[in-house]
Amino acid sequence: MIKTDIIIVGAGPVGLFAVFEAGLMKLRCHLIDAIPQAGGQLSEIYPKKPIYDIPGYPSVLAGELVDKLMEQAEPFKPGFTLGERAETIEKQEDGSFIVTTAIGTQHHAPVVMIAGGLGSFEPRKPLIENLGDYENKGVNYIVKDPEQYEGQEIVISGGGDSALDWAVYFAERNGFVHLVHRSDRFRAHKDSVGKAYELEDAGKLKMYTFSEVKALEGNQELERVVIENKTEKTTIDTKLWFPLFGLSPKLGPIGDWGLEIEKNAIVVDTFDYQTNRPGIFAVGDVNTYPGKLKLILCGFHEATLAVQTAYKIINPDKKFTLKYTTVQGVQGFE
Amino acid sequence: MIKTDIIIVGAGPVGLFAVFEAGLMKLRCHLIDAIPQAGGQLSEIYPKKPIYDIPGYPSVLAGELVDKLMEQAEPFKPGFTLGERAETIEKQEDGSFIVTTAIGTQHHAPVVMIAGGLGSFEPRKPLIENLGDYENKGVNYIVKDPEQYEGQEIVISGGGDSALDWAVYFAERNGFVHLVHRSDRFRAHKDSVGKAYELEDAGKLKMYTFSEVKALEGNQELERVVIENKTEKTTIDTKLWFPLFGLSPKLGPIGDWGLEIEKNAIVVDTFDYQTNRPGIFAVGDVNTYPGKLKLILCGFHEATLAVQTAYKIINPDKKFTLKYTTVQGVQGFE
Repeated sequence: MIKTDIIIVGAGPVGLFAVFEAGLMKLRCHLIDAIPQAGGQLSEIYPKKPIYDIPGYPSVLAGELVDKLMEQAEPFKPGFTLGERAETIEKQEDGSFIVTTAIGTQHHAPVVMIAGGLGSFEPRKPLIENLGDYENKGVNYIVKDPEQYEGQEIVISGGGDSALDWAVYFAERNGFVHLVHRSDRFRAHKDSVGKAYELEDAGKLKMYTFSEVKALEGNQELERVVIENKTEKTTIDTKLWFPLFGLSPKLGPIGDWGLEIEKNAIVVDTFDYQTNRPGIFAVGDVNTYPGKLKLILCGFHEATLAVQTAYKIINPDKKFTLKYTTVQGVQGFE
Repeated sequence: MIKTDIIIVGAGPVGLFAVFEAGLMKLRCHLIDAIPQAGGQLSEIYPKKPIYDIPGYPSVLAGELVDKLMEQAEPFKPGFTLGERAETIEKQEDGSFIVTTAIGTQHHAPVVMIAGGLGSFEPRKPLIENLGDYENKGVNYIVKDPEQYEGQEIVISGGGDSALDWAVYFAERNGFVHLVHRSDRFRAHKDSVGKAYELEDAGKLKMYTFSEVKALEGNQELERVVIENKTEKTTIDTKLWFPLFGLSPKLGPIGDWGLEIEKNAIVVDTFDYQTNRPGIFAVGDVNTYPGKLKLILCGFHEATLAVQTAYKIINPDKKFTLKYTTVQGVQGFE
């Protein structure tokens, strides 16, 4: 049984910053996340994309921001249970909680802070009978480490930002890419769409509009995709197909923790971002309240206020006086 | 008459970030500040001190943070009225406001956002009859640009963090400093106090406990200070005395703008950080609400939520849909 002061469910940017703010109050934290590394969406979905609205960073790559937040949390020696989804929560007689993961790892603490972001992301999948046979064997729903695909024949499906951004990226980087879309209208930013047409004119991108990938072929691994429109079929030899139809967030098991939920988010009070269950807080994109914006910078504020009440729960007899780090510095744990 | 969308009173970190968030919504801002440069306290009081609790910055010098926030706001071309204190606000028939500075510069906008920090800072001054004769002629209440004092004989008074930090700084940098304190107990961080005693042992700092500077002498400029304790007087030839007894914040003329005030701060609603006067917002250290923490990172959140309602006031018929900067980028003004 892992014991700590605050169990943080979700190791994204807001969970990591909560470690720092809790640490300033001498509270220890342990983070649980279903994905195998810290950073949440920023590491998993868009590590190489710049973010422009982190205060004090005119531009920062998502992955770099995660590195900075890890460094900021480091003096406070957070524990991590990664690659395991938090499944159940059980309140103990003394008011503390035990949180157990899908594979049975148990965590015990007086306070639980849910920083679960938009939940776990499930890619929207195309309806192809043998799709499952090729998942991670040529069919990928996310582009991670794009460098590894250099020089390869790539087919991308989709009409949103992700599909267009990556099509442009690979067309420029690899010199050629196939882009398949079931309509001729794109939901992506118009600059990206313009760029894609320019690349088509330059012979670097082949666009298949009003078309869909309808069949996958290959022995063990993907070897060919079949693209169909109303009149014809085209077979392309490729080992890589990215169906980028977006990701749909799911709250997952947290949805059954007895918390008040509204539109797939946990309802909190703005005094301390506590849920309807005392001792359980929800911060960042996972929560909702009047005026809520799903922005990382808002999560930083919410986590900071939440740890103030967490401190009172954990130390009912002590009084904490806020000291500025400029005056006090940062004293980490050994 | 300067016309804009949002008049921001206070050009500190929170005011600057409000420019960025407003800019994302295509709203223009104009900032007014009594001090002659942007950055508020960070530029005026502690530009060379590190801050450790800005999310994503394990450590950042206050002055550097201001530079970054200026860079982040730059695409949105904010206007500045610096070195002029906002004095009066007048509501117009159409609901808009005119804000006028102490020297009469007028600003007109449908929304006013007060980001005034802790207000204007007044140094706590010692009671010495001819003190005024030497202010800025040898007597300084703030240490700015410490490099300019290299190699000079310096007398510092005070027993708090500021006095101790600077005494240690000059002892190490200049090789010698005088530190005068009316007791032998210090309110400063114990590491700084320990360091001061070490420097005294090393002959680099002369400490005068139970002592006060009681007289100032000099022709036109400061030439000597007289230090007294119960039994003796010591006269020191010096051109520089820093009485560092702290700064006491004053709300100033904003206190008379008809806003609900509680403990020297403006009461706001946490939905959008609006005051009791519709169209006037208060963000950052200047405001108060249940759970309020006077932290820069909280001000960033508050300003971001405030501009959402500002947008609706300025564009009553339009609907704004939040787009992520990672998707949308940042489109500045020409």
